[in-house]
Amino acid sequence: MPYQAPIRDLAFCLDHVVGADQLAATERFAEATAETRSAILDEAGKLASGVLAPINRNGDLHPAKLENGVVRTSPGFADAYRQIAEGGWVGIAADPEHGGMGLPLTLATAMGEMFASANLALSLCPLLSQGQIEALEAHASPEMQALYLPKLTSGEWTGTMNLTEPQAGSDVGAATTKAERNDDGSYAITGQKIYISWGDHDVAENVCHLVLARLPDAPAGTRGLSLFLVPKYIPDADGNPGEANALRVVSLEHKMGIHGSPTAVMSYEGAKGWVVGPEGGGIACMFTMMNNARLGVGVEGLGIAEAAYQKALEYAVDRVQGRTADGSKTIIGHADVRRMLMRMKALTEVARAICLDTALSLDMAKAAPKADAKAWFARGAFLTPIAKAFGTDAGMEVAELGIQVHGGMGFIEETGAAQFYRDVRVTAIYEGTNGVQAADLVGRKLADGGTAADGLLREIRDVAHAAAGDLAEMGGQLAVGADALEAATQWMLAAEPNDRNAGSVDYLRAWALALGGSYLLKGAAAATGADADRRTALARYFFGREFPALDALCEAAMDGAAPLYALSAEELAS
Amino acid sequence: MPYQAPIRDLAFCLDHVVGADQLAATERFAEATAETRSAILDEAGKLASGVLAPINRNGDLHPAKLENGVVRTSPGFADAYRQIAEGGWVGIAADPEHGGMGLPLTLATAMGEMFASANLALSLCPLLSQGQIEALEAHASPEMQALYLPKLTSGEWTGTMNLTEPQAGSDVGAATTKAERNDDGSYAITGQKIYISWGDHDVAENVCHLVLARLPDAPAGTRGLSLFLVPKYIPDADGNPGEANALRVVSLEHKMGIHGSPTAVMSYEGAKGWVVGPEGGGIACMFTMMNNARLGVGVEGLGIAEAAYQKALEYAVDRVQGRTADGSKTIIGHADVRRMLMRMKALTEVARAICLDTALSLDMAKAAPKADAKAWFARGAFLTPIAKAFGTDAGMEVAELGIQVHGGMGFIEETGAAQFYRDVRVTAIYEGTNGVQAADLVGRKLADGGTAADGLLREIRDVAHAAAGDLAEMGGQLAVGADALEAATQWMLAAEPNDRNAGSVDYLRAWALALGGSYLLKGAAAATGADADRRTALARYFFGREFPALDALCEAAMDGAAPLYALSAEELAS
Repeated sequence: MPYQAPIRDLAFCLDHVVGADQLAATERFAEATAETRSAILDEAGKLASGVLAPINRNGDLHPAKLENGVVRTSPGFADAYRQIAEGGWVGIAADPEHGGMGLPLTLATAMGEMFASANLALSLCPLLSQGQIEALEAHASPEMQALYLPKLTSGEWTGTMNLTEPQAGSDVGAATTKAERNDDGSYAITGQKIYISWGDHDVAENVCHLVLARLPDAPAGTRGLSLFLVPKYIPDADGNPGEANALRVVSLEHKMGIHGSPTAVMSYEGAKGWVVGPEGGGIACMFTMMNNARLGVGVEGLGIAEAAYQKALEYAVDRVQGRTADGSKTIIGHADVRRMLMRMKALTEVARAICLDTALSLDMAKAAPKADAKAWFARGAFLTPIAKAFGTDAGMEVAELGIQVHGGMGFIEETGAAQFYRDVRVTAIYEGTNGVQAADLVGRKLADGGTAADGLLREIRDVAHAAAGDLAEMGGQLAVGADALEAATQWMLAAEPNDRNAGSVDYLRAWALALGGSYLLKGAAAATGADADRRTALARYFFGREFPALDALCEAAMDGAAPLYALSAEELAS
Repeated sequence: MPYQAPIRDLAFCLDHVVGADQLAATERFAEATAETRSAILDEAGKLASGVLAPINRNGDLHPAKLENGVVRTSPGFADAYRQIAEGGWVGIAADPEHGGMGLPLTLATAMGEMFASANLALSLCPLLSQGQIEALEAHASPEMQALYLPKLTSGEWTGTMNLTEPQAGSDVGAATTKAERNDDGSYAITGQKIYISWGDHDVAENVCHLVLARLPDAPAGTRGLSLFLVPKYIPDADGNPGEANALRVVSLEHKMGIHGSPTAVMSYEGAKGWVVGPEGGGIACMFTMMNNARLGVGVEGLGIAEAAYQKALEYAVDRVQGRTADGSKTIIGHADVRRMLMRMKALTEVARAICLDTALSLDMAKAAPKADAKAWFARGAFLTPIAKAFGTDAGMEVAELGIQVHGGMGFIEETGAAQFYRDVRVTAIYEGTNGVQAADLVGRKLADGGTAADGLLREIRDVAHAAAGDLAEMGGQLAVGADALEAATQWMLAAEPNDRNAGSVDYLRAWALALGGSYLLKGAAAATGADADRRTALARYFFGREFPALDALCEAAMDGAAPLYALSAEELAS
């Protein structure tokens, strides 16, 4: 059975866990009613399972390749991309003024999960365009918007992000790509950028690169960077692709996964670009779309988790092997197979709730009354690194278990479980490694003195205290966990920066567990009938098997930096 | 810098952690003095780093392939195998009567780690021969031994294990391959076997298959299986490869990793075989070598952990990126990079100690006075599933972190970090999945009423109580951890089988943590001078960051089966 869009789980999470009705209650997203949400989930789900999933393995087996300077994408990708574009999905959250649907990021996130489940490599292409659309909506001049946004929103053109250079990865401020002012108001861009996803392809007629570069008189570091829009083909007077720009694909990377996504080394050789936002404002422009882009990558991890879970479950239901404890004919009757499936399911549901809740916060930051908007934004900003890091970690862990459920078959490529494992690995790396996310959480996101953290802890405690009946014991566990997390938060707020960094990854994971327990409990409380039993059972699994790790994570998080620096590099090597 | 054999860490672990001098004090292994051990480590290390490691990527890039029914191995593999054979390494632990070195399994294990680090795919070939040698030494008739063991021990011929069939994986008793009695005392073997590592190749002149098959009058299940030796070429009167047997390679699997190891689907079409041990005694014969084979796979995981750690450390020392907290010019100054490296180092050292300690126990079971031998064997048998599952889990986790340390480069195949990640994944699956190992631990290995577990807990407590000075606090933690593990053990002993299975994986991991803390503390106490500081620092990291998980693991282990079965297959799917 191929991938089935998890419409029911998505709708439940939207309706009852993160509370998407709050969106429909705003003027901006008044259209995002339960009915609209349902229609969007259905249609996006059909595209994902019917069009994108069937060609997922094409991407793996027939990677995008560079031939005579032109990138040829995997069989079927161009047609599938066309269907994404024609369905209006690239512009799902884009401004209606330029042809977008104007729907909330929350729905774009649900769509993104399904697309990533079905075909991670291909889904990156519209995801990158969405990031570019967002940046241009926020920072481009009206003329630039008028020229580019309709084409990007319709999917006729696609977008890329060009940040990384060989010497400038996490340290983006080390970028040396040059921008020189031309007489006509444009700039000449010269330099090399690496890891450019969908840097070139044959699925659309133009590729628009957002490139971070440095003006001759700019200071060193991030403050000296400006953002430029550099199209592959320079639009002519009618806004159609015209003259070829002075840029080229040097090579495509040979990667462990997402073979269907062409990852280019790009060379800009005096290419014509136009500044987006003010000169020197490149990093600020990037930051605008950073939360969404990072959330988007967390959603990629979530998507793979869901897909890997479905595949493993199907195998477990089909595969006959050994005498099972519950009399099942197939391996789903074995306790450890069930443990793996329950873990996969729980991690996936938690990742989904965190991602959708993050999106909802970022939407509400735009749509809520001004008095509330700032708090919503801070909430979303706090959740973002958790969504990115936990979403992708969950993706890796679930894909890993997915292989294990398959036994020997999991290691054979034909099965498809291995592709999930290979594909998802990159999501913990790009758009800021998960370590960078954790540093962001304990750095920037606690820089408000803990206000955003306190707000979330309060929400978690509200769920804990509301838990009654069958859920009361879990509510008690959650409340105790919230105390441990609060203590760790207080420790973080008082600690030196590097002590915070030393514990940041464990601290982030502790947040994911606390939030996860809270979401699952909230869902169990909100569900009715058989669904209530089902959601209670999942929460019960989580509190019995996963949540207990929270204490140890908090303890490790507060261990400080000194033990990590006790060995010199030479001592580590000996 | 290519792989460097970790001679110093291996020697330290042998000398001071697992106490290899106990071997030299026996008559059987009197030769295994510190001097011999050192010479063996040096020579095997040279072969690993100088010959095997340089062609590791050849295996990945140029997988073994099937051409006109013949398997061609990767470039350089045949020559490297020849050097392994000519060095006598295949027979390192084999009986000197047939040309072996007669050294303890403990040294074979140290050698195995280095070979696996250097070239996992190739290292499987001699490892499989070693398993076959062991089986034939224990169960074959003197005539069969005389005919086959010299050739296998010298490496002129290689061995394979043929257990799995499409419908018979973990449930080996479901095998249907037939054996029919011929008039000349041989048997005609007919059936298909899958996942046969090194099932055919061009690195040696003959391939000897150990095949589990069923006689026509045999009962169903494992008790009806017999073990047969089925050579590719039937030895002639002079013991040289003669007539081709009626067997063939149907196909090679397309795997995620260990591309250099040909994984064959084998077809036996009335092939001539000779029974090993009594008819119907196949499983008993397999069990003889099960501990060693499983330990061997744990060591494969350990080997990849060490290699992945070295590669990541080298990158961290070289890669310039961002301003570091300690003023280092490269990323090794970042707290989270250090966290990853410390974790990799600690997991690797713990896996090494568990594997070597397991090997030592199995050696002592053969070499110790009869009064002690049984307890040694039970100790080794208890440790074996922990060595297999933790060794391979550690391998996967370290390889995963190895990619993360590399950032974007980790996802690019040329770097080599990805190959470790892909290669090691199979080790958690074959030779009994890690779930099967955990079931073995809480099933068969606790079937003695907890005697072996108690003995190990006593050892752990002895280490805890001996910890003084700087180590005292860690000793206290270890003692508390031993109490938690004892409580979980008591729970397991009283629980229903499926409740035990439900918690088995977490219980096994808790053992690995307790043993790990004990080994690291013992090492820190035994070390002197600067080495004492270094080992204390590593132990300190482990007790601060890894050991705290033990409580939660024990709690999860005692959660019982019911929560895992609370959802039906249909509910899991919805």
